[in-house]
Amino acid sequence: MTTAKRDTYTPETLLSVAVQVFNDRGYDGTSMEHLSKAAGISKSSIYHHVSGKEELLRRAVSRALDGLFAILDEEGACAGRAVDRLEHVVRRMVEVLIAELPYVTLLLRVRGNTATERWALERRRDFDHRVAGLLKAAAADGDVRGDVEVRLATRLVFGMINSIVEWYRPESRGASGPEVADAVARLVFAGLRQA
Amino acid sequence: MTTAKRDTYTPETLLSVAVQVFNDRGYDGTSMEHLSKAAGISKSSIYHHVSGKEELLRRAVSRALDGLFAILDEEGACAGRAVDRLEHVVRRMVEVLIAELPYVTLLLRVRGNTATERWALERRRDFDHRVAGLLKAAAADGDVRGDVEVRLATRLVFGMINSIVEWYRPESRGASGPEVADAVARLVFAGLRQA
Repeated sequence: MTTAKRDTYTPETLLSVAVQVFNDRGYDGTSMEHLSKAAGISKSSIYHHVSGKEELLRRAVSRALDGLFAILDEEGACAGRAVDRLEHVVRRMVEVLIAELPYVTLLLRVRGNTATERWALERRRDFDHRVAGLLKAAAADGDVRGDVEVRLATRLVFGMINSIVEWYRPESRGASGPEVADAVARLVFAGLRQA
Repeated sequence: MTTAKRDTYTPETLLSVAVQVFNDRGYDGTSMEHLSKAAGISKSSIYHHVSGKEELLRRAVSRALDGLFAILDEEGACAGRAVDRLEHVVRRMVEVLIAELPYVTLLLRVRGNTATERWALERRRDFDHRVAGLLKAAAADGDVRGDVEVRLATRLVFGMINSIVEWYRPESRGASGPEVADAVARLVFAGLRQA
């Protein structure tokens, strides 16, 4: 790593290194020493940018959460029948998950040992409730099947979406974000079986 | 723990304690000391039953794998149209996952650091391929939609099913195994949207 590169270190690049280390070692298993080594800068240089690893965690999960919450303000999530708004949200969740893969991966692995982790879990629950609310509204409209309980359906749909972080690798030239989003929307709303 | 209870220690009860410790601490993070403490018996008593923690891991993941592979020999998985056999397998996978929850949880967390872990991953891949084969056959029959690629659909369906280990708690009086299996089968094959 050259001096020039060190000079251009920004909070943004530091964040992307930190997220990778957190995902590889686990947040609990990561020390400032690990971050310093991975970033190729001294610990005091890191402290120049942030107060410590918990601030890096907060920034990283905020990026994931902000991306997810922004979906709920999109026109497709606000106008129209609940079932169509839900489909928009499901599709966009997949796209955001893939666009912000390391950040959402970290968010989904948060455990709740620190105040920042508990705050992230709370915001995740809040997001889940808002999506479950859409599903409930779609059920009230009679637009989704009545024989699968709303809470169970929400968990299963989130399970399918969140599982993408386990196998999706952007470098492997598989399906693109929008292609995976299409596949998820088709499976979730219309199912596998040919009508 | 009474002496009487220690006397009745069987490989079966030792296995169920070991699986719980592996799931709590991670397999890598579990020592014979941890197992001995959790089981309330000496390390030498454990060695009386098994050669070490890797044998316990092998027995535990074998129980999960045997349960899953047995599904493929059931009549519902062997006779009839591929799409119906696939639906049988999906439904039974959920039931086995819930009936053997700690064992399947452990299987899904296996990483591949030891020979036993690599063997377990290999058998999991083999099972996944067999299920993907059913989906491919159903697609060839024209019974499942053609606009979702088979490998992607397989991953997403497994993602939904496997996510159950993250939230299903038998003690919480929620949905039973067959109820969750019904919900998964409805979502996967017919989708959320009211026809």
